[in-house]
Amino acid sequence: MPRHLFEPSGFHNVLGSLEPAFTIADGDTVVTTTIDAWGFDGAGVKRAEQPNPMTGPFFVSGAAPGDTLAVTIDRMTPNRDEGWTGAPVAPNVVTPMAATELPKRIHVRWKIERNRGVATLIDAPPALKRLELPLEPMLGCFGVAPELGQAFSTATSSANGGNMDYRRFGPGTTAYFPVFVPGALFFLGDGHFCQGDGEIVGTGIETSFEVEFTVRVLKGKTISWPRGETAEDIFAVGNARPLDEALQIATTEMLAWLASDYGLDTMAASHLLGQVVRYDIGNVFDPAYTVACRVPKRWLAALAG
Amino acid sequence: MPRHLFEPSGFHNVLGSLEPAFTIADGDTVVTTTIDAWGFDGAGVKRAEQPNPMTGPFFVSGAAPGDTLAVTIDRMTPNRDEGWTGAPVAPNVVTPMAATELPKRIHVRWKIERNRGVATLIDAPPALKRLELPLEPMLGCFGVAPELGQAFSTATSSANGGNMDYRRFGPGTTAYFPVFVPGALFFLGDGHFCQGDGEIVGTGIETSFEVEFTVRVLKGKTISWPRGETAEDIFAVGNARPLDEALQIATTEMLAWLASDYGLDTMAASHLLGQVVRYDIGNVFDPAYTVACRVPKRWLAALAG
Amino acid sequence: MPRHLFEPSGFHNVLGSLEPAFTIADGDTVVTTTIDAWGFDGAGVKRAEQPNPMTGPFFVSGAAPGDTLAVTIDRMTPNRDEGWTGAPVAPNVVTPMAATELPKRIHVRWKIERNRGVATLIDAPPALKRLELPLEPMLGCFGVAPELGQAFSTATSSANGGNMDYRRFGPGTTAYFPVFVPGALFFLGDGHFCQGDGEIVGTGIETSFEVEFTVRVLKGKTISWPRGETAEDIFAVGNARPLDEALQIATTEMLAWLASDYGLDTMAASHLLGQVVRYDIGNVFDPAYTVACRVPKRWLAALAG
Amino acid sequence: MPRHLFEPSGFHNVLGSLEPAFTIADGDTVVTTTIDAWGFDGAGVKRAEQPNPMTGPFFVSGAAPGDTLAVTIDRMTPNRDEGWTGAPVAPNVVTPMAATELPKRIHVRWKIERNRGVATLIDAPPALKRLELPLEPMLGCFGVAPELGQAFSTATSSANGGNMDYRRFGPGTTAYFPVFVPGALFFLGDGHFCQGDGEIVGTGIETSFEVEFTVRVLKGKTISWPRGETAEDIFAVGNARPLDEALQIATTEMLAWLASDYGLDTMAASHLLGQVVRYDIGNVFDPAYTVACRVPKRWLAALAG
Repeated sequence: MPRHLFEPSGFHNVLGSLEPAFTIADGDTVVTTTIDAWGFDGAGVKRAEQPNPMTGPFFVSGAAPGDTLAVTIDRMTPNRDEGWTGAPVAPNVVTPMAATELPKRIHVRWKIERNRGVATLIDAPPALKRLELPLEPMLGCFGVAPELGQAFSTATSSANGGNMDYRRFGPGTTAYFPVFVPGALFFLGDGHFCQGDGEIVGTGIETSFEVEFTVRVLKGKTISWPRGETAEDIFAVGNARPLDEALQIATTEMLAWLASDYGLDTMAASHLLGQVVRYDIGNVFDPAYTVACRVPKRWLAALAG
Repeated sequence: MPRHLFEPSGFHNVLGSLEPAFTIADGDTVVTTTIDAWGFDGAGVKRAEQPNPMTGPFFVSGAAPGDTLAVTIDRMTPNRDEGWTGAPVAPNVVTPMAATELPKRIHVRWKIERNRGVATLIDAPPALKRLELPLEPMLGCFGVAPELGQAFSTATSSANGGNMDYRRFGPGTTAYFPVFVPGALFFLGDGHFCQGDGEIVGTGIETSFEVEFTVRVLKGKTISWPRGETAEDIFAVGNARPLDEALQIATTEMLAWLASDYGLDTMAASHLLGQVVRYDIGNVFDPAYTVACRVPKRWLAALAG
Repeated sequence: MPRHLFEPSGFHNVLGSLEPAFTIADGDTVVTTTIDAWGFDGAGVKRAEQPNPMTGPFFVSGAAPGDTLAVTIDRMTPNRDEGWTGAPVAPNVVTPMAATELPKRIHVRWKIERNRGVATLIDAPPALKRLELPLEPMLGCFGVAPELGQAFSTATSSANGGNMDYRRFGPGTTAYFPVFVPGALFFLGDGHFCQGDGEIVGTGIETSFEVEFTVRVLKGKTISWPRGETAEDIFAVGNARPLDEALQIATTEMLAWLASDYGLDTMAASHLLGQVVRYDIGNVFDPAYTVACRVPKRWLAALAG
Repeated sequence: MPRHLFEPSGFHNVLGSLEPAFTIADGDTVVTTTIDAWGFDGAGVKRAEQPNPMTGPFFVSGAAPGDTLAVTIDRMTPNRDEGWTGAPVAPNVVTPMAATELPKRIHVRWKIERNRGVATLIDAPPALKRLELPLEPMLGCFGVAPELGQAFSTATSSANGGNMDYRRFGPGTTAYFPVFVPGALFFLGDGHFCQGDGEIVGTGIETSFEVEFTVRVLKGKTISWPRGETAEDIFAVGNARPLDEALQIATTEMLAWLASDYGLDTMAASHLLGQVVRYDIGNVFDPAYTVACRVPKRWLAALAG
């Protein structure tokens, strides 16, 4: 299959029906770069404004509304030696009373050792001087153009993906997006060196990346919300506020998945999910929160054929 | 240390300042039994009414308001050959529109093979005939009497614990509860053979158990919400609605813990939590939802002393 | 009907199955006094601890589980010349980011002119020197003992009433409570000289009162949540978090009311409510928020008989 | 000032940076028509697709980012003899358990008597045969283009206005919108003959209108969220989920208003709001809910100058 190199010359702060930057086809692989959430590239040069400037959009030939776009994240390689994070934790992840006591927001820098695959705090407070975080890269913001001619800021997310900030969207994962417009119009960016659940400081370790990904078009396969698959799990994603509603969306999408692909009606799916489901909180910081409803594949392998 | 056998003769549907059933001391171990959420014991005899009848309360000598009660769950052994679960998923874990399409609630039975440590559905739908779930027992409801002379139904949970339905409250875990009344008044029950995140069908596999636990009184150690510790993790628990608020409580309690025991101020704790924190959803079914803010101990071991 | 004078000698910080302070019967009127949220009486003497110490409980002869207790608030007369409020607005009624900028909480005093029925700020900031607020008294916290032997702090509210802080619970209103225990066990207190929607500073103008109320027992009439009736409106009350859930409870209870008493099935009730319903936010400060679903009686009078 | 007649020839399902349909200036009045939420005009002809097709956008000369656009709704005249509503109440306004019992959604028709200004149900259920609802018209969806080149479906609302479905946005009200793009780009539509709080059946009485409005540009006046003013009140509007967050936004915007225009710092504003504020629930149906924080002008008139 073709493997394209695409070097972005412009970036976007919305996911919408914009002019395609590059056209690819079902099965193609792309190697490209992403800049960080503030617009800095691998050379430390500011290339675009925040929030989360996107590489793309990629027009995927043959993708049409009602299809699903599968995007496998093949590789994410940091392409500079520094990243940054915010602090303290966001006021919406502590009690309202505790929020009144939070210190002023700052940003701190992390040294990235690309050969060792670790990050360490520059000017670390004494207690954190020995802290080394391993590379567990992920795409904070990626997705396709939404329906109806809408365009959404890369600060938020919806049924089309976007700023989900979910740590399982990293190398080895295949993400699935509903296609709402011809060509799907795929965008990506906002790479994180690593990130905890919830993105509770408002950032992962933000840096720039070389990213390799492969697309497939699942003709006639219709889904409603983003999904994903790793070696161990399948998961469905809901993006909304509050967390309860994101969880409701994710669970409903998982029930649809188990029905269509695994033959489980609501009762059978409930017997299974009730005892094996896992919920992950992608982000609890952005305008839309993200919850994943996840099922380890080992339970699906146990289903009678 | 003393190891007591306590065979309960009565059960309670509230956690409150009730007459102690048994008095124990700091360091004591108790072997006792719990009945299931509907009140059935190991012989299949109905001994009490729902919801979640509790064994206890245990008066812990020396425990006083402002202390912390540590309860190590040493062992949970199912003491009968059947359990049960509900279905379908609760209407509050799917979208409101999907809720209108849910089938009527039923209960189904599971065969428990105690020697093999597995459960299988009795009268399973065809797709689930091969499904075997391993024993991962947990206490759905346990805790201490609340403050102010209050008494709370065992259907719900609060700062004193209660019906948290969090799967990490199983053997090997030490739970910590704030002590609000003299003697703490510890209750336990509602054992689950296993349970997924969120208790989204309203039950784990509900059955009766022989339970062994050990208490310690941490004099002068004051906490605000339940906490826990396993071999791998520490976690703080928030019980509230919606999930956002449970998460806020849990995060705030974890920040307090990191400050008092690990010397991390809010900024340092934020640098760490932002990139390593894990959130678990205990339950998203009961009147109060439960979220745990969890930190793997390996990161705490990396803190400079 | 009998009219009793009851001078309280003790007060309670929970609504629960406590020893009755006084026994009354269906149709009786009681004249009593309430102390303020911090426990100060009409003479400025501290009589009890916060939160919201209650007068009562009143055992209502003949009231049994499954009945409804109707309490008409006949009169509320402030019995001292000062009240107090808190400020600023609570951190949970502004955005989390705005919460981080709030000034520290203070309490301020209001002069009550009982003859004129107005309150004015003592040591008012210049802009508020001319502000006069008229007497619109209400009971912040009142209700009956909850089910199952539970006992709830007077800081919060539930199906049994409690700290609803809803400004339409004032003179002229008849409140309806589900009866959960023999005798109902009615408590009252936490009077406010006046209060805005939401009790967003955490207080109304808090003061002590002479209160006159009349009880009726509606035998065999079963309701699920508190209700109320004024000259113009009927309303059903939900107490929960978040506001969405309080609104859901209130709407569901109103649908039940319209079905049982007005013969409207869900479709007919929807046609009416959709175009005429009013929602009031009682409080958005306490552990449980309060929303009222209100229907002006003029629309009910228009129903075909 | 000029008074323009504008007959729309096309309609839009998003609020975004679209090609202007008509250009007007500060102080101009426009008489135009709006079609109903499903796209039917005054002649009963379907002119556009749902959701909520908009008339406009109007480019307002001189309006620039950072300004405020004031839109006075001068008049709304229904221009046909029928409207429609949905039923039953939405599943998200009853408890999740009650949602599972709701009947299937239907739509019903209302006869509009324009001379008498009343609406009556066609094929009314017996109990509602005498129900006459008076004309209290409002614009369900109106606003300006959002920032960043975004475009939002007319099903939802945000800082730029949109589908707020708030009944106080009717004749006599001046609405204020933050200007995000040159010319503001004002859209309007989705007129309701009347509507209850919350739009809980998902509709008001939906029909088409002749609408007259007047615009003003407040140069250099910057606001963050929609606001409004009637003869009796000022109000600030928050659009978000859940209701709690919409209320937080509205309250924060009102505090900003009281500071900038009335000289009240947070403490003084809190003393006032705490005892006089009113909250209205615009809608609790759309993707973003709407809450208004409202202050009767009589209290503002009492402020010392």
